[in-house]
Amino acid sequence: MPDTATPIPTRWVGPIRVRGNAVSGEVEVPLATYETPLWPSVGRGARVSRLVEDGITVTVVDERMARSILLVAPDAATAYAASLDIQGRIGELQGLVSTQSRFAKLIEVRDEIVGNLLYLRLEFTTGDASGHNMVTQAADLILDHLLAADPRLSYGSVSGNFCTDKKVSAVNGLLGRGKNVVAEILIPADLVAKQLRTTAARVVELNTRKNLVGGIAAGSLRSANAHYANMLLAFYLATGQDAANIVEGSQGITYAEARGEDLYFSCTLPNLIVGTVGNGKDLPVVEDAMVRLGCREDREPGANARRLAALVAASVLCGELSLMAAQTNPGELMAAHLRLERRRQDAGSVA
Amino acid sequence: MPDTATPIPTRWVGPIRVRGNAVSGEVEVPLATYETPLWPSVGRGARVSRLVEDGITVTVVDERMARSILLVAPDAATAYAASLDIQGRIGELQGLVSTQSRFAKLIEVRDEIVGNLLYLRLEFTTGDASGHNMVTQAADLILDHLLAADPRLSYGSVSGNFCTDKKVSAVNGLLGRGKNVVAEILIPADLVAKQLRTTAARVVELNTRKNLVGGIAAGSLRSANAHYANMLLAFYLATGQDAANIVEGSQGITYAEARGEDLYFSCTLPNLIVGTVGNGKDLPVVEDAMVRLGCREDREPGANARRLAALVAASVLCGELSLMAAQTNPGELMAAHLRLERRRQDAGSVA
Amino acid sequence: MPDTATPIPTRWVGPIRVRGNAVSGEVEVPLATYETPLWPSVGRGARVSRLVEDGITVTVVDERMARSILLVAPDAATAYAASLDIQGRIGELQGLVSTQSRFAKLIEVRDEIVGNLLYLRLEFTTGDASGHNMVTQAADLILDHLLAADPRLSYGSVSGNFCTDKKVSAVNGLLGRGKNVVAEILIPADLVAKQLRTTAARVVELNTRKNLVGGIAAGSLRSANAHYANMLLAFYLATGQDAANIVEGSQGITYAEARGEDLYFSCTLPNLIVGTVGNGKDLPVVEDAMVRLGCREDREPGANARRLAALVAASVLCGELSLMAAQTNPGELMAAHLRLERRRQDAGSVA
Amino acid sequence: MPDTATPIPTRWVGPIRVRGNAVSGEVEVPLATYETPLWPSVGRGARVSRLVEDGITVTVVDERMARSILLVAPDAATAYAASLDIQGRIGELQGLVSTQSRFAKLIEVRDEIVGNLLYLRLEFTTGDASGHNMVTQAADLILDHLLAADPRLSYGSVSGNFCTDKKVSAVNGLLGRGKNVVAEILIPADLVAKQLRTTAARVVELNTRKNLVGGIAAGSLRSANAHYANMLLAFYLATGQDAANIVEGSQGITYAEARGEDLYFSCTLPNLIVGTVGNGKDLPVVEDAMVRLGCREDREPGANARRLAALVAASVLCGELSLMAAQTNPGELMAAHLRLERRRQDAGSVA
Repeated sequence: MPDTATPIPTRWVGPIRVRGNAVSGEVEVPLATYETPLWPSVGRGARVSRLVEDGITVTVVDERMARSILLVAPDAATAYAASLDIQGRIGELQGLVSTQSRFAKLIEVRDEIVGNLLYLRLEFTTGDASGHNMVTQAADLILDHLLAADPRLSYGSVSGNFCTDKKVSAVNGLLGRGKNVVAEILIPADLVAKQLRTTAARVVELNTRKNLVGGIAAGSLRSANAHYANMLLAFYLATGQDAANIVEGSQGITYAEARGEDLYFSCTLPNLIVGTVGNGKDLPVVEDAMVRLGCREDREPGANARRLAALVAASVLCGELSLMAAQTNPGELMAAHLRLERRRQDAGSVA
Repeated sequence: MPDTATPIPTRWVGPIRVRGNAVSGEVEVPLATYETPLWPSVGRGARVSRLVEDGITVTVVDERMARSILLVAPDAATAYAASLDIQGRIGELQGLVSTQSRFAKLIEVRDEIVGNLLYLRLEFTTGDASGHNMVTQAADLILDHLLAADPRLSYGSVSGNFCTDKKVSAVNGLLGRGKNVVAEILIPADLVAKQLRTTAARVVELNTRKNLVGGIAAGSLRSANAHYANMLLAFYLATGQDAANIVEGSQGITYAEARGEDLYFSCTLPNLIVGTVGNGKDLPVVEDAMVRLGCREDREPGANARRLAALVAASVLCGELSLMAAQTNPGELMAAHLRLERRRQDAGSVA
Repeated sequence: MPDTATPIPTRWVGPIRVRGNAVSGEVEVPLATYETPLWPSVGRGARVSRLVEDGITVTVVDERMARSILLVAPDAATAYAASLDIQGRIGELQGLVSTQSRFAKLIEVRDEIVGNLLYLRLEFTTGDASGHNMVTQAADLILDHLLAADPRLSYGSVSGNFCTDKKVSAVNGLLGRGKNVVAEILIPADLVAKQLRTTAARVVELNTRKNLVGGIAAGSLRSANAHYANMLLAFYLATGQDAANIVEGSQGITYAEARGEDLYFSCTLPNLIVGTVGNGKDLPVVEDAMVRLGCREDREPGANARRLAALVAASVLCGELSLMAAQTNPGELMAAHLRLERRRQDAGSVA
Repeated sequence: MPDTATPIPTRWVGPIRVRGNAVSGEVEVPLATYETPLWPSVGRGARVSRLVEDGITVTVVDERMARSILLVAPDAATAYAASLDIQGRIGELQGLVSTQSRFAKLIEVRDEIVGNLLYLRLEFTTGDASGHNMVTQAADLILDHLLAADPRLSYGSVSGNFCTDKKVSAVNGLLGRGKNVVAEILIPADLVAKQLRTTAARVVELNTRKNLVGGIAAGSLRSANAHYANMLLAFYLATGQDAANIVEGSQGITYAEARGEDLYFSCTLPNLIVGTVGNGKDLPVVEDAMVRLGCREDREPGANARRLAALVAASVLCGELSLMAAQTNPGELMAAHLRLERRRQDAGSVA
């Protein structure tokens, strides 16, 4: 039992106009954060979305959850032979998983051999759950099964960091973990000028110099954006997600193009690890949030979670667009911050 | 004004026995998290710390906060000349900063030239604040000053992502941002056996195979640990920190050695961005937490924040040690989770 | 026509005793290098291999060559639809490739969507050629075909850097490019002592502290070794390979274990891009080298190239083992260098 | 003694028109490579340079060579104390180095503490040598000195991979190793059209989509270019460099801007490890190359090496510009390759 609760200031922002293969309509989103300038920032992006006929389009490109087990062989030759053998028994492993869970479905097993170490990355769909625990249980079962079946292999770890959870890596972006989502919008020139006080060319130029080149110079890894982590944290906390997953969630790419004077602006988020059921979702405030977000509807397994991921991505785009526009204008950002934060000593961050 | 608050379940865990150049004593720590198995996990590490005479030793190695501005020159030759010129005027810039803030002190300016783009990384100490806003204000001032002084330069961005805030990178670890802290403990063999149900050799082996080799195989970047992000998130939320900074905070290294049968276990966290004053710190629950943590004492500027960072690092070590020990034992982890989470569908994550 | 030739000093070293799924026997290897201390270094490893009954075991785990094309869609939704469509037409694309080349076989198409950009990573086997040009021709053909078939797509680039060739990345290691090879050896304690003047424990400790932890601290990416690049360069030059591929080739992992007092030592090289036919292979000296290496035998397509890759990996292990052993002994390395390089001002590198 | 020599086909290309803080004039450059399409590719860039009044401007921004030693302390607190102590004795260490070498000058010592491990990165200038061996000798001397002076420290390694040599990392780019050089050119619109058969807008767009976004998606690390490694390898081989250093040398950034219809194009190469004296430079063909390159003049120590680095960077720009221009045109690249390589089975690579 908790001793107490830490109340994170929360506001519903929007609505955001959004459509795509997982959501359609105008939806308000909850943001729990100590960094309250985030609310008007996302709010400005949401206003832009409502002024564009099609709003923000969100495409869910992939979904899976992974856990890597680590098996130890006497040598690489044996590890390789064992891996080939296991690849031939995927059906057997899928059957095994299905005996344990209605929702977890094993979709792929990838191997990575380093010396005599055999990392098996087990990839699942997990219905509407983010799936951390579901895949850990399944991995545990598979691990026992494989160890029992092959005396050449011994236990390394139930988690070999080739998963990888809540840690910076390239593996999640390249092999997939969580929902892979792209949010995008095409903003007419007059809205860019009036609502964002900038031009398409200036946003594109800033994105190239700051997010792309600046990020590369900083030694970033599959990450080129201004502040995805801010929106992710706030949304995740308000909806009972395991917010430590913003570590990999923040590894996404902002890409913009000037199309004539109009602005094409996109946020690609390959690692949104979110769910509508499971741990953290039973708190009343979270339950209310899910209902209000339209994520408690009677849909096929996984559809509510995809809707949630789409709304997360749309929220990220709103906040990213607003900050990027602000940073094209010298002085605007700090002036806005000072206005909002007048009484604070250290008012938070602008990324 | 917030519409509401999201109450994050919170428990005080410990006390942790800790000493070092920023803290000494036995201190309980607050953890706000939806992943409640974290509490007994950190609690087990804390118990171990109390059973070791010296407890956990924490060394604060460095502290600074950075903001990078982006200036645009016509070409690299000009950018280089401008940078040399600026390096010769650090004293002038330091004076400028001191007119604005009592606490922000400019300690270093680093340049990075890419083509005609000049990224200046301004590094400050910021007293007891984490310093996000303080350095942004200072950067804004310096930016205006440099642009006024040198007509060859034009505005690029108040933040060029060479800072870099809440984003995965190598720059923060290598050049420093936040508190650079090492927590370590030397655990006698009998405690390793009785409290952690493992051996030093097995912990070292797992660390090598999972955190080091597994992390490398996963394409990690300056990151080799099991689940720092979990402890960081919980501690940051409970103490009003900007928890999006767990993105870079989680980029740390677990290193262990077997010393005979005893276990040397360390967590190196180069990027703890925390403060005891500033944004998020004015909530009553946060104020109470600061008092209880001993971070509201009358010390020289920065000392309370260093104490806080040391306690964060000690908490990370407790949770990391406990999980690593558990993963040396097949099945232990899942059994513990299931016991704690029996009624949940998806019980969270074990990293 | 060349104006001249740059003669790189070359020596045949060994023989190396080697076995595995692509080679078996004792084979001398050619090393072309300005860094002549490399010869005795690899030579020492080769001597160890001959003193171990099974020698070095080399396992070829995977082989493929990739080229990524870049298609541009109006938006992500269209890019995603196009990608799904293409995935359904792999058979058609395979047929197309087979009309152009006897050896190139399309085995997989992977997509990566960033905003409206669609990167397609085309993966092939290429017989005994390294395959650079073969896959570029095939990619060109496929690109034309896809653009003709789908008016929603436009040309981005024949190479979108998601391949990626001769550049540092995580994608090649995780998705595969070139031969993925593990070389390993189990060295009895007495040989470790007598031939390498060290112990298994000291080699393991050094590997952990230098290659693993040191590499992580340095911000390495999927790379943890002492000096793979040296052996790769020398072998590649002597056998007519495109030696710029040492960039990704050098991203490999050294992993060692103490098994009692014996030393298990392995080198995992996921990206060996080598061939026995094609560009650079028609020079007489290269032809001679191929014959002497046993890579001009009448085997199934690809077998000669796999043999070559196995010999490369074995050579890398020899040099890595020798240098690692030397670095366990303070002063040994520099003394050896000075002895070998007495008359030189700047004698090369020890990594 | 070598058994033989591997003759790498070599051609002098250019001249390149170049100016800057290390070179000025028109200079031909030698390229030793099996990938002979490289010659006309660099040649085209050189022709463009001669048609622009100012040619290519090259700025050498920094130079240093590093070697990291690894010291082991009982704990981090001791490592930190030792490091502080060493920082206070830089003058003493500089004096020590000067007793050994006329050319090696210690300019900075940086520490990195991971647990109880203390990595000291010793940074030097090394005159006209690339400095591998010079810094290894100096590091050896300093290591002995420090171990003798402080009984709390023990030997870890003469090279702790925090240097880092011939390996992928972020540390070299961020802290500096080798010459940090920017090459740039401003090409009038008519030359872009006539000589490169493209437009500034198309080159910029391709650079963004391929080198920047494509590279980020591929999980690159401080690397965004098309094929730096090709030019580096060819130039390094022809001038007796340790060409394994193309691994880090290839980690550079191509950045382009459209200035009206004109094209600004730049290549930033932070890690050019080259020298005009030392190992590999005593071969007659290399000596001739140095003379012809104007790198055997009587200049202050270091000036010939900086000139060489500037010429390397200019050559990289020529090849990069040519390939990037070609890739803006569907089909041009393969057509050019096929024309050049008609009789070859596998003609090399286009990056």
